[in-house]
Amino acid sequence: MANNITVMKFGGATLATPALMKGVARRIVETRAQGRDVVVVVSAPGKMTDELIAKARAITDEPDEREMDMLLATGEQQSIALMGIALKSLDCDAISFTGPQVGIVTDDAHTKARIVKMGGEKIKTALRLGKVVIVAGFQGETENEEITTLGRGGSDLTAVALATALSAGICEFFKDVDGVYTADPRIVPEAVRLPRLAYDEMLEMASLGAQVLYNRCVEFAKKNKIVLHVRSSTKPEPGTLISEEVAQMEGVMVSGVTHTKKEAKLTILWVPDQPGIAAKIFSRLAAEKLNIDVIVQDISEEGSTNISFTISQDDLSRAKKAVEKLVREIGAKGFEADEHVGKVSVVGVGMRSHSGVAAAMFEALAEKGINIQMISTSEIKISCIVAEDRVEEAVRAIHEKFQLAKLA
Amino acid sequence: MANNITVMKFGGATLATPALMKGVARRIVETRAQGRDVVVVVSAPGKMTDELIAKARAITDEPDEREMDMLLATGEQQSIALMGIALKSLDCDAISFTGPQVGIVTDDAHTKARIVKMGGEKIKTALRLGKVVIVAGFQGETENEEITTLGRGGSDLTAVALATALSAGICEFFKDVDGVYTADPRIVPEAVRLPRLAYDEMLEMASLGAQVLYNRCVEFAKKNKIVLHVRSSTKPEPGTLISEEVAQMEGVMVSGVTHTKKEAKLTILWVPDQPGIAAKIFSRLAAEKLNIDVIVQDISEEGSTNISFTISQDDLSRAKKAVEKLVREIGAKGFEADEHVGKVSVVGVGMRSHSGVAAAMFEALAEKGINIQMISTSEIKISCIVAEDRVEEAVRAIHEKFQLAKLA
Repeated sequence: MANNITVMKFGGATLATPALMKGVARRIVETRAQGRDVVVVVSAPGKMTDELIAKARAITDEPDEREMDMLLATGEQQSIALMGIALKSLDCDAISFTGPQVGIVTDDAHTKARIVKMGGEKIKTALRLGKVVIVAGFQGETENEEITTLGRGGSDLTAVALATALSAGICEFFKDVDGVYTADPRIVPEAVRLPRLAYDEMLEMASLGAQVLYNRCVEFAKKNKIVLHVRSSTKPEPGTLISEEVAQMEGVMVSGVTHTKKEAKLTILWVPDQPGIAAKIFSRLAAEKLNIDVIVQDISEEGSTNISFTISQDDLSRAKKAVEKLVREIGAKGFEADEHVGKVSVVGVGMRSHSGVAAAMFEALAEKGINIQMISTSEIKISCIVAEDRVEEAVRAIHEKFQLAKLA
Repeated sequence: MANNITVMKFGGATLATPALMKGVARRIVETRAQGRDVVVVVSAPGKMTDELIAKARAITDEPDEREMDMLLATGEQQSIALMGIALKSLDCDAISFTGPQVGIVTDDAHTKARIVKMGGEKIKTALRLGKVVIVAGFQGETENEEITTLGRGGSDLTAVALATALSAGICEFFKDVDGVYTADPRIVPEAVRLPRLAYDEMLEMASLGAQVLYNRCVEFAKKNKIVLHVRSSTKPEPGTLISEEVAQMEGVMVSGVTHTKKEAKLTILWVPDQPGIAAKIFSRLAAEKLNIDVIVQDISEEGSTNISFTISQDDLSRAKKAVEKLVREIGAKGFEADEHVGKVSVVGVGMRSHSGVAAAMFEALAEKGINIQMISTSEIKISCIVAEDRVEEAVRAIHEKFQLAKLA
């Protein structure tokens, strides 16, 4: 049952300087003054996580993952401490906790751990005492008290998991953008803010790289029916509400165009065409904790086939090692890697009841002479893998084709 | 009983860059290769603690102390993680732990907590598995799992406390200096390194600002008979050994000249001359957790007296507040503050069996026309409070007077 608790999550960009921190603290105090019980979740300030990764890489190319978690967890810990200091300096009674301190228990997959148990008693006690509770996002600990981090978007996940554990009415995400757009406005100046989105749309947009909310967070929210609100950290206006699908949403064929860069494509050549071979390949890659995105298998020819898939460029060196071994084991001919691809997608729940979306999208790309390397579809999205350096052009062409600027 | 364990403590200056970190890691591997079980204690890298304090102060002048501990503890946590990464990149099996993780339990005096209990089982288990164990200095947690820091010199204290808990044979301090000098070489170019010092001498030198080891650390070592070795992090040569007093040490009248700056002097004027009034003043200041250094009470006149004491400049604003209240309560006339004083001291166990040390010291100051504001003595040291801007001149004059350059 929903109660009076609001979870307010602030991203790193909104905490990059002491002045921004103070602004965020005032915003929290305002929300508190409206009679809400406030739980704040913060990311590491500014670019700190990237800076810490750079420090580790200055020592070695492949830093130990357990120690990386030990290192990265300090970013959010600095944020909670500074936010505690900022709130108390405004005479707002507040207390900060690390992930381990509030009982966020994870598995032991260092640098991309999953939450397995969520404490909350310590937070409830502090709320009852009238305190604003500040919790470090992105981190937890294993049953053996080893510090872990949750991987990309981990702080968003922490916020939704806390909202769920606390039965909070709403989980608000304060960002340096004021909501979810029909496309990245840096690439498509005509892009407009969407007032409302269905979980499934956001899910596709998140996992496709809208970089507003990550998929793990939205999935968690969908499952637990937590209403999400993506809004500006500096402006008071509402942003984009993300909730269960409502009838009016179907009127729109496409809600947005998303894209990713920094992907890589690996193709395993001449894979023997035997039952179970794809399962073998991808279970092995899963065991290596590699996140595979799009998979395409060619039409079988002469008893063999080519299997292509995409992964993050960051994982490429690990993936190559794993594939090299696999090639030998399964008796394939070899593999090829294209280190620079990207993905362009259209998303919309309205696609379920409209036809011709795929055709219009391919047409838009063809008109610009952009080659489609792989295609992947779901009920509410269509994705094309293209060369990394054509991604932005592709996004603009598609946004124009579907006249998304009219969606505001 | 001493065993095969060496505690190696590395200060922040020795960890300031990735290159320095790698050098330290190689040094640890060398020690491990000599068959020693190694426990490493590290400070925050470079000037990080100061930078974190500056971040907090950019938000408010008086940051909350509990949240400061939450903030400052991240410095050492970054060091242990980076050292773990560096060691593992050299194929040295290593594991890092925060203070709370190894069971360093403290009281709740945030920003200057005291260790009340020292765990060690987690470390012993890891050593038995052949690992190098890296522990974050400076930090612990209360029985209620609140993160605390140990105040200045806290990492040194962690090292000696661990050496004690583990019955380590020796505790080595790797510094950007190669030992303890007769005076600060930046101020006295003729200063020489002392090969050996008694705990009591080091204790006086530490508490008087030699800035090599802090008094809490040396006291702890003396009590538990841990031999300390202060040495260079980059050169293999031995540095200064600190142990129990041996007979030959008495041959030397004065072992060193030390100094501090950044002290402040407060004088409470016309304190009613009643029994118990000094106790009232200083127990109140102690309750405010203010560290008082030198205390001087004037000869009583007309039923009242002046009481002066020195404190760190950092504590001045808090001290002034406390004194202001006290003045009203005890019916004193008021108080004066001199915000810029320093202290010059001579130290030596040989002083016990030599006379004339004080006279020679005062003479050296008089020859330079340096006014002595307060004097304080112990069995093995004599200190003078002088104007902050005359401190360096005073150190040079005294070093010269006692011909300390011949002590090498």
